[in-house]
Amino acid sequence: MIVLGVDPGLVNTGWGVVSLEKITTGEQIKAYGCITTKSNCLLPERLGVIYKSLTQIIKKYKPDTMAVEKIFYAKNVKTTLLLGHARGIVLLTGCQAGLSIGEYTALQVKQSLIGYGRAEKVQIQNMLKNLLKLKEVPRPDDASDAIAVAICHLNSSKYLQITNKAGF
Amino acid sequence: MIVLGVDPGLVNTGWGVVSLEKITTGEQIKAYGCITTKSNCLLPERLGVIYKSLTQIIKKYKPDTMAVEKIFYAKNVKTTLLLGHARGIVLLTGCQAGLSIGEYTALQVKQSLIGYGRAEKVQIQNMLKNLLKLKEVPRPDDASDAIAVAICHLNSSKYLQITNKAGF
Repeated sequence: MIVLGVDPGLVNTGWGVVSLEKITTGEQIKAYGCITTKSNCLLPERLGVIYKSLTQIIKKYKPDTMAVEKIFYAKNVKTTLLLGHARGIVLLTGCQAGLSIGEYTALQVKQSLIGYGRAEKVQIQNMLKNLLKLKEVPRPDDASDAIAVAICHLNSSKYLQITNKAGF
Repeated sequence: MIVLGVDPGLVNTGWGVVSLEKITTGEQIKAYGCITTKSNCLLPERLGVIYKSLTQIIKKYKPDTMAVEKIFYAKNVKTTLLLGHARGIVLLTGCQAGLSIGEYTALQVKQSLIGYGRAEKVQIQNMLKNLLKLKEVPRPDDASDAIAVAICHLNSSKYLQITNKAGF
């Protein structure tokens, strides 16, 4: 099972592809990175960049499913609205590729990885480093957040059958 | 010049195609309507419906430019976030079709049509009915809001050269 985890944002959209072939061998990282858009570009163009990049990532790594961070609030109304724009594009790309999409709050991700919802970012990042046998903590933060949500999704998927297949 | 006006929303996305061939003959309505998504469908699917429908509308009516309502606030954080998702999809479809995109606040739209930023919705709708020589006020409200933003864009475009061509 291959999961594409995404942490949406207008400036930085983190992504990470994690596979779990055998539960005994554990999760393996296939690739991760961050889609960055320039603030001096127009909003529609920036959304176009996120759409194009994520579509290419899906085409390249052929994930079976997608996991996206669920958000309830942001710093202010303007930030929330812009975050919504970027998150909409992320969900659309998953939907168009016919991927099932799991949505998890930061609390759920932390609980799934550390067993404690208020864990610090550095604890999560070190956990990812150990779990995925990486030499370094995955950077930038948006990429490690994306990998974390992918692993949270894998943890859920081990026990739960995903049924929300969109199939667009 | 053909303008596609859009009033984005997750439940209802109003749209209206207005053309202005000669300033002397005034604006003419080509078509209008509302894309509706069901609340019992998953969010990615609903965004997929907006994307697909709007892409088909662009293909059918071949607008030269797009006008979208600009939002600064919504009822609450959840509504703002969901509205952002839908609005992101709208801007993406325009960007992918290589359309220039004008964004206008409700205040700007009212000022452009009535000359008064705090005009009532019914005043705007009656103005549209007269201006476009319609037998009835365009319905639903989301469609008339979309037509209004299209006309606001035409009013600006009469005097201003639109330069923000995205060209995706």
